[in-house]
Amino acid sequence: MKHDAFQLRQIGIIRSQMKNVHDCRHQEREGAARAWIEVDPGYREALEGIEVDSEILVLTWLHLADRSILKVHPRGNPENPMRGVFATRSPHRPNPVGLHRTRVISMEPPCRVQVQPLEVIDKTPVVDIKSVLAGDR
Amino acid sequence: MKHDAFQLRQIGIIRSQMKNVHDCRHQEREGAARAWIEVDPGYREALEGIEVDSEILVLTWLHLADRSILKVHPRGNPENPMRGVFATRSPHRPNPVGLHRTRVISMEPPCRVQVQPLEVIDKTPVVDIKSVLAGDR
Repeated sequence: MKHDAFQLRQIGIIRSQMKNVHDCRHQEREGAARAWIEVDPGYREALEGIEVDSEILVLTWLHLADRSILKVHPRGNPENPMRGVFATRSPHRPNPVGLHRTRVISMEPPCRVQVQPLEVIDKTPVVDIKSVLAGDR
Repeated sequence: MKHDAFQLRQIGIIRSQMKNVHDCRHQEREGAARAWIEVDPGYREALEGIEVDSEILVLTWLHLADRSILKVHPRGNPENPMRGVFATRSPHRPNPVGLHRTRVISMEPPCRVQVQPLEVIDKTPVVDIKSVLAGDR
């Protein structure tokens, strides 16, 4: 199998009160922190149709993750037996793409979207935004 | 804002009966096709803990997508008004990462996982597998 390398483009950035990993909880659903997604003006058109109070999926690039890790103690708790990262939501994985389901709580045209909950470190790159499908529920 | 480029690594490949886009329905949840995920042996350990009948999220690289498209007719239907791709699940988007929620129906150690439903074209690269969180439901 070839290990083709595919390049992601940064389409935006997270603005958050959380400045380091210690500010983040283990799973964002346990908190209710707000954050802003600042989308690059070049992608403004791609936001059309996103509405306040809708649910969206935000894909981030977890730039502080360790891509060499294949097994972890789930939720960072050493009492949990080691599992493969593909059976967890650890940020540490070969491709550290974060997946966050959240709700739009306000918009500041043309390119700023405020969401809650989203527990992601300030300045984390954003690589995609998707609508929520019935099948995701 | 910088447009940093981030490189994804292919961690596996989809083996599917669907050989082209015409074989795919617009949303995989409408069908019930089965597919195999063949994970590269180098990532074998990362699969530990995935069990038959569990739900997983599969992230793919939609290699046939057009990355320059910012607006689409949702579900490819010209009667649907144009929307920004971030408000849709179109494969066409700046970073064509496919997100598929599916169920493990069998495993063939060490590296093959059969899932259903998954409507993805044969040979689509896989870039990540994640567990499903309560918050995803």
